[in-house]
Amino acid sequence: MSSADTVTPHAQPEPTVVAAAMFAKDRVAQALGIAIEHVAHGRARLTMHVRADMINGHGLCHGGYMALLCDTAFAYACNGYNAVTVASGFSIELLAPAREGDLLTAEGVEVERRGRSGVYDIRLVNQRGETLALFRGKSRTLEGQIIPQP
Amino acid sequence: MSSADTVTPHAQPEPTVVAAAMFAKDRVAQALGIAIEHVAHGRARLTMHVRADMINGHGLCHGGYMALLCDTAFAYACNGYNAVTVASGFSIELLAPAREGDLLTAEGVEVERRGRSGVYDIRLVNQRGETLALFRGKSRTLEGQIIPQP
Amino acid sequence: MSSADTVTPHAQPEPTVVAAAMFAKDRVAQALGIAIEHVAHGRARLTMHVRADMINGHGLCHGGYMALLCDTAFAYACNGYNAVTVASGFSIELLAPAREGDLLTAEGVEVERRGRSGVYDIRLVNQRGETLALFRGKSRTLEGQIIPQP
Amino acid sequence: MSSADTVTPHAQPEPTVVAAAMFAKDRVAQALGIAIEHVAHGRARLTMHVRADMINGHGLCHGGYMALLCDTAFAYACNGYNAVTVASGFSIELLAPAREGDLLTAEGVEVERRGRSGVYDIRLVNQRGETLALFRGKSRTLEGQIIPQP
Repeated sequence: MSSADTVTPHAQPEPTVVAAAMFAKDRVAQALGIAIEHVAHGRARLTMHVRADMINGHGLCHGGYMALLCDTAFAYACNGYNAVTVASGFSIELLAPAREGDLLTAEGVEVERRGRSGVYDIRLVNQRGETLALFRGKSRTLEGQIIPQP
Repeated sequence: MSSADTVTPHAQPEPTVVAAAMFAKDRVAQALGIAIEHVAHGRARLTMHVRADMINGHGLCHGGYMALLCDTAFAYACNGYNAVTVASGFSIELLAPAREGDLLTAEGVEVERRGRSGVYDIRLVNQRGETLALFRGKSRTLEGQIIPQP
Repeated sequence: MSSADTVTPHAQPEPTVVAAAMFAKDRVAQALGIAIEHVAHGRARLTMHVRADMINGHGLCHGGYMALLCDTAFAYACNGYNAVTVASGFSIELLAPAREGDLLTAEGVEVERRGRSGVYDIRLVNQRGETLALFRGKSRTLEGQIIPQP
Repeated sequence: MSSADTVTPHAQPEPTVVAAAMFAKDRVAQALGIAIEHVAHGRARLTMHVRADMINGHGLCHGGYMALLCDTAFAYACNGYNAVTVASGFSIELLAPAREGDLLTAEGVEVERRGRSGVYDIRLVNQRGETLALFRGKSRTLEGQIIPQP
């Protein structure tokens, strides 16, 4: 980091650095094999394979796991500014099922951010590029930072 | 089953019987330690403990797991009629966080059912009775039965 | 108001008094012929007739007017505490259509209120008691009062 | 219509022609002064001025009218294929208020369409380009056509 950066009061770590710090503590992403493929300010792309223990009583991937992957992409997209940000709610439209072995990709983008509130849209696709779900998350920024700054 | 039942075209297994058949194939509920405490037509109450592998990068229960438990209660509530029913979407308001070791209870009730569509509300509370989340699910009934009838 | 009330710092006007003050300034409710049938803390029931100018290009009541009536019931339910409260968002499931001349009733109840946030559910029915829509509103309380208190 | 068109089974009127036919019967759009600025397959942009009779008890544009304009843009976007299509539900995030005299623009785009279901996103902005609301509509295509084809 240049000396010019160090005197800028709002200098923050890069989104990739923030994401790495989050992932190191993120037991869920680690346990489910979620991979962070891309992060940027207001953006994140994550992948997850549908495992046998994600299959529900209808023989399909539990919609809750599809939502969880989207919610995780949402979290990485909205926390990249290094300000602790949580979900106040979300909605999801489940358009098509996923099956064991499918590779799911959740791609999230910031639609709007104003003050402490934000809206993020996440599209969930499978390995054939078919859209399985559309997720919209609402964020709320709290006090504190992912990587505390001096 | 009595002979009277066998001539009733719409006789269906009890919701508890349907739930047991679903649970036997429900890898998610089994793997996460979800317990089916109560089921009835259009109703279900499920519990789950927040485990260490449900904790996200902020040190709190991942909202996706809170949604997943609600979604599971929704599934058991709307499938009790023995007609295969799936979620077409849901929304959740996340009001308060859960922490490792908390006991979560998701209680679902049918708000409306018309033809192949239904709306179900699920309230998520912790062991102190505090409401953590409010979930609303939209169901769509497909062809087929959980326990095929002759 | 009794002298006991005057020393209670949080004494507020009754919800019916607050509703009357709101209605007096509510150009929308007046112009659309919306009637306030009942209000209480966290509750409101409103009615509206579907007029010719509420009919859309499909010959049915515009879903936007069904939502608007629900949103108005939501507003009267959440402002009854005399603290200025606005909607931060809502969702609506449109289950059945309304037609010209129908009498619509929107009944709203508070599901949860915590700090400055609340969740309210409104059910919209017609004159035959058929549920036409289910609405869920999220409220945010601002500074200020409907009827300023000394 | 050329002979080439008459042998194409799925030839349909242009979206602008469909929109004009809808608008001719759309009492709501006419009464509220809603203007159809642009339509295309899966797209529509509409404008409306906030009138005095759209002001609620807080002195702001009623959120119901903001939703109604978005819902109308949604309707024109999803009916451009000339197949009768209705809203099964929608959600809206209200981010900032509108005031009397403001010029509101609702711009809608199709996010996904599969079989008889679709998802459309509408952004509502004011005359300064500020985003006031984000709306997501779910459509269901019925039998019938806006302009019946031979």
